[in-house]
Amino acid sequence: MFEAVELGRTVSKDEFNTQEPGLRMQLLEAQRALREAQVPLIVIVSGVEGAGKGEVVKRLYEWWDARGIRTHAFWDETDDERQRPRDWRHWRRLPPRGGIAVMFGGWYFRPMVDRAFGDIDDAQMDEELSHVKELERMLTDDGALIVKFWFHLSKASQKERIKKPKKHWKRSSLEKLYQKHYDAFARIAERGIRMTDTGACPWYLIEAEDDRHRDLTVGRTLLEAIERRLREGATVDAAAVMHKPPAPVDAAVTILDHVDLSPTLAGKEYKKQLNKYQGKLNELAWAAYEQGRSGVVVFEGWDAAGKGGAIRRMTVALDPRLYRAVSVATPTDEEKAHHYLWRFWRHIPRGGYLTVYDRSWYGRVLVERVEGFAAEAEWMRAYQEINDFENQLCEHGIVLAKFWFHISPEEQLRRFREREDTPWKQHKLSEEDWRNREKWDDYKAAVNDMVVHTSTSYAPWSLIPGDDKKYARVEILKTLCARLEQELD
Amino acid sequence: MFEAVELGRTVSKDEFNTQEPGLRMQLLEAQRALREAQVPLIVIVSGVEGAGKGEVVKRLYEWWDARGIRTHAFWDETDDERQRPRDWRHWRRLPPRGGIAVMFGGWYFRPMVDRAFGDIDDAQMDEELSHVKELERMLTDDGALIVKFWFHLSKASQKERIKKPKKHWKRSSLEKLYQKHYDAFARIAERGIRMTDTGACPWYLIEAEDDRHRDLTVGRTLLEAIERRLREGATVDAAAVMHKPPAPVDAAVTILDHVDLSPTLAGKEYKKQLNKYQGKLNELAWAAYEQGRSGVVVFEGWDAAGKGGAIRRMTVALDPRLYRAVSVATPTDEEKAHHYLWRFWRHIPRGGYLTVYDRSWYGRVLVERVEGFAAEAEWMRAYQEINDFENQLCEHGIVLAKFWFHISPEEQLRRFREREDTPWKQHKLSEEDWRNREKWDDYKAAVNDMVVHTSTSYAPWSLIPGDDKKYARVEILKTLCARLEQELD
Repeated sequence: MFEAVELGRTVSKDEFNTQEPGLRMQLLEAQRALREAQVPLIVIVSGVEGAGKGEVVKRLYEWWDARGIRTHAFWDETDDERQRPRDWRHWRRLPPRGGIAVMFGGWYFRPMVDRAFGDIDDAQMDEELSHVKELERMLTDDGALIVKFWFHLSKASQKERIKKPKKHWKRSSLEKLYQKHYDAFARIAERGIRMTDTGACPWYLIEAEDDRHRDLTVGRTLLEAIERRLREGATVDAAAVMHKPPAPVDAAVTILDHVDLSPTLAGKEYKKQLNKYQGKLNELAWAAYEQGRSGVVVFEGWDAAGKGGAIRRMTVALDPRLYRAVSVATPTDEEKAHHYLWRFWRHIPRGGYLTVYDRSWYGRVLVERVEGFAAEAEWMRAYQEINDFENQLCEHGIVLAKFWFHISPEEQLRRFREREDTPWKQHKLSEEDWRNREKWDDYKAAVNDMVVHTSTSYAPWSLIPGDDKKYARVEILKTLCARLEQELD
Repeated sequence: MFEAVELGRTVSKDEFNTQEPGLRMQLLEAQRALREAQVPLIVIVSGVEGAGKGEVVKRLYEWWDARGIRTHAFWDETDDERQRPRDWRHWRRLPPRGGIAVMFGGWYFRPMVDRAFGDIDDAQMDEELSHVKELERMLTDDGALIVKFWFHLSKASQKERIKKPKKHWKRSSLEKLYQKHYDAFARIAERGIRMTDTGACPWYLIEAEDDRHRDLTVGRTLLEAIERRLREGATVDAAAVMHKPPAPVDAAVTILDHVDLSPTLAGKEYKKQLNKYQGKLNELAWAAYEQGRSGVVVFEGWDAAGKGGAIRRMTVALDPRLYRAVSVATPTDEEKAHHYLWRFWRHIPRGGYLTVYDRSWYGRVLVERVEGFAAEAEWMRAYQEINDFENQLCEHGIVLAKFWFHISPEEQLRRFREREDTPWKQHKLSEEDWRNREKWDDYKAAVNDMVVHTSTSYAPWSLIPGDDKKYARVEILKTLCARLEQELD
């Protein structure tokens, strides 16, 4: 693969000076157009040591308006990062729509370095790279443009360059190591590139022997990629449908009809059980803390299904230092400027802590679907995006529990009326609740599809019968305790 | 101090049940009013172990709408936090306008615990608490409401409570320690409370023997404090003037008139020097990285003074993995919802890294002053806020360099014309630049005041003669190298 680019191409100084001004103007114009079209650009800069990755980035800063560009490296992990799933560090550095992120190595850095140092084997690297592919697909589906560069130097040139560093060239301790293992790294790089060289996110292999040739090629490649992306415009969504998302299930009788709403719990028995499981949860949360295991609890349900009260009965059992409750409301503009999952990644807890989401990423396939805020292609592919996201949480060792609070439409109406009549409950009822109620059947279909498509072995949905609030409260405590007991040592 | 609240007050269950519903309604209404008035509320929950701080917080979650409340603890520092100045961990948790943050211990946690464990002495604790006072004043000046609770238990009751924990009461290893050193902690707490019990941010000492009495008192205190704050309304700014900010200096001849704009540098000598200091900077940045020391470089200057070009000549010498350039543009809505310093705290680097600010917090006393975006009281008190902020950076060991790029109005005009005529420079010139130019004298006065008031021993301004771009570029490199050399081991 790499030999194919060892062509010894060079660009003379005159040639460079002739071509550069025009290219620079076009790139600047392209940056402006990206901003206008609100397309985020991710440039991944990878390649062999000594190929001048840093110099390329400096050139981009020269050509482009530095405002709106951010550079990120992933060599130096913080414990905040280590204690969270793999992609957390990437999500927090994604550019907002219209912005540019230049990433050294990007999500390729960790798997390739781990493989090179023998911390993982080929199969594990492949597995990680297949996640990378999913991540890239998800981002491009969302409208992002990802341009991936691999800068190549022949073995001889690399040796030469590392021996005679250019000015300001700090030789890291890693460089000699890379040089020594040139062939091994080349093999790993080739495998990695091959696996992730997709149509939507191709790799660009750039010969880095000659600086001017390298930089002009980068500039032209970026320009073309940007122009191509901007020509596509809104057709991206249509293309996304080609990914064959699962067909939604539209049966009249849904999984919700099978939820038995009759069980109740009251009086002493309720108090006894509540007490028992709150105590248990308190202990388990501390055990999780001591084991550095974190938890994510998702609450979804019909309006007035009793989520709030159940969440309080749960959190009352937790030390407030150990958990954080996130009520999902209107996104801020920083959140709106990113992929819809971004604002949930933000709150993923580090080791030992718990995040409780009062409503969650499932809004994508519920309210956004029903209200038409997300296009069909968007919410349809969301099932897989969500499954991948949750898979990553669970693989990292996060205990994930998801609750759907189910009530009958009759019970909902009774509660709406009660809220109207109780002064300190009036704020809980809005016009929107009444509007949502009118769309009960649409929501029912959406909930059914959601449960069908996202009840995975690692993150099953628990459907909680909520007509009796007390029964529901104990039920979620029980379920959560069981999940924790099963997962913790 | 504490004996005064040991009154054995209790509230019967009936009494509580009579009072609670009304109080709850009023608190809910107060929360809504705070949101409407865009006032952020910070509730600091402190006190002896066993006093039920966690239970009080749970009660607040019951009374209030949980959306918009966040709880924070400071017991468990991450390395991201340890590697940054003291207040970084607090700033990142400040509530947005209209939001509520409940903080366990808040900014009192660290100094008091450090003192209790003998890591610092009384004088050091006093010093830290005087910073705390400044922080609180800055936040209340900005419109925040801070309510500080100290929950007190007599020695005998604490012993009793820790011996017989209530349900869900996890006994931390610290508890016994606190119990053993009750008197010592009481002395420290009293000293801390006394020092920080200010008019704008008083402490509320609450007797915590009886849960119902404790909770009702907290509820009423919060209600009163919120209502008082809302009555004050916009008068807060007027009150802030009372803090006697430094009088701005309005001399016709300013410090800028003393900048000698004549020095030049060209040809070989320029190249030689540029090369020399770029090389030096490269080495120094790596040395800083190895020593875990971080740096903050601030660039301010007239439009077209050559900041951008100088920044590029500086960053070209840095490994892109070691620095981050922040171009300060319009704040996002998350940024607008906080104190103006918040968005700069966000980017403070951790140990070993460098942040370059292209424009900075000085916008408060420059553009915001001249354009009237900040009220007089606001920009006048900003000098001290900025000095305190920078002092904290420097005390943490951050190397701080601040550059003002000075050019003559004639040179500016020449450059504006040049930008108009050069295709790839046109994007750098806007209507706003022309408008700013008309206000040259106002800006000149503002710059002079800024330099006078914020050139401190630990963070002096460097005024860079910018009429000759090449001279300026070398000058900032030299200055920065000198600062780093002086600060690093």
